[in-house]
Amino acid sequence: MQPDTSMNRSGTVCSIPVKNFIRRVREFHGATAPGVILGGYMVDLAYRHLPKGDILLDALSETRTCLPDAIQLLTPCTIGNGWLKVLDLGKFALCLYDKSSGGGIRVFVDTERLKPFPEIKAWFFKLKTKKEQYLEVLLDEIQTAGSQICGVMPVKLRPEIFEVRRRGPFRVCPICHESYPAQHGDCCLDCSGKTPYLI
Amino acid sequence: MQPDTSMNRSGTVCSIPVKNFIRRVREFHGATAPGVILGGYMVDLAYRHLPKGDILLDALSETRTCLPDAIQLLTPCTIGNGWLKVLDLGKFALCLYDKSSGGGIRVFVDTERLKPFPEIKAWFFKLKTKKEQYLEVLLDEIQTAGSQICGVMPVKLRPEIFEVRRRGPFRVCPICHESYPAQHGDCCLDCSGKTPYLI
Repeated sequence: MQPDTSMNRSGTVCSIPVKNFIRRVREFHGATAPGVILGGYMVDLAYRHLPKGDILLDALSETRTCLPDAIQLLTPCTIGNGWLKVLDLGKFALCLYDKSSGGGIRVFVDTERLKPFPEIKAWFFKLKTKKEQYLEVLLDEIQTAGSQICGVMPVKLRPEIFEVRRRGPFRVCPICHESYPAQHGDCCLDCSGKTPYLI
Repeated sequence: MQPDTSMNRSGTVCSIPVKNFIRRVREFHGATAPGVILGGYMVDLAYRHLPKGDILLDALSETRTCLPDAIQLLTPCTIGNGWLKVLDLGKFALCLYDKSSGGGIRVFVDTERLKPFPEIKAWFFKLKTKKEQYLEVLLDEIQTAGSQICGVMPVKLRPEIFEVRRRGPFRVCPICHESYPAQHGDCCLDCSGKTPYLI
């Protein structure tokens, strides 16, 4: 594990002025969520530690909360294009990696560096209810802290995570007449009892 | 199941001119992906069948491919704010629903209505390789077809899908010293062997 010795003091994340990034977060995510703002600094930090040169990037978020939106706003990786995966380990960490080799950079919140930032610490460990939080103070602390509170480490992903899985051919389900991946069997998962619907 | 008798012939999806939507798809998704464009018509159709009035919307995508990006671009629901869930059944279908009741509208591609649209049919069933596809013809067919090729049905989600699960408190993992949901046990999922990383 390396400490972050390359703090970005330019008032930007991924070359976007922080104010503009905050506006984009509000538009896309629906609120100025502290987790997405902090996520912006984390994506920025990961980029700064990636090797220079042309690599095709994929991303992994270790939580389904907030971080996926920072990744979708600041990288080419989205859920729908398949370049962002969410593995919901409940950890506020992300990884940007070379999709051909699985080698990349993981960024996480280093809990030992939170002491000088009491509002971030209270928010991060859910020590206060939302009503008790001071959003403005919290956002100020996040902008002051930037990636100072983050750790960064090189990682290599397990092949089953980063290798592309092809779905193979599709066919029409004999029950609902919708299309589904033939590899799922004689009928679609909906009709075989895995439907998310009651009716 | 109801046929779509309310086709939107206005050249818009969700009140956005289709051309502008296509530009936003290119910027966000990285390409003019036919699945995201068709997804736009599907979101538009679902909206038109939802009851009028103030309901707080959540969304479900039954595939991880393309559709989640149409939903994220045209609704307030994103992966990171938790209002969009992806349940990867491999079906090109989506649902917008009232997050308090789980009642909503599901939109799917009706395979029986694809006959007049050979390029859509070939793309949808993967009958051609990407190289053999005519992207311009396919995109034209999608814009001509709009939601004509879709079916729409009222649904009610199973409570385990739509009810909000709270994570509860967080604690510091004794092994990696990162925070994790206390309900996961004595250490985080990464350290208990569920890590996605080799190193």
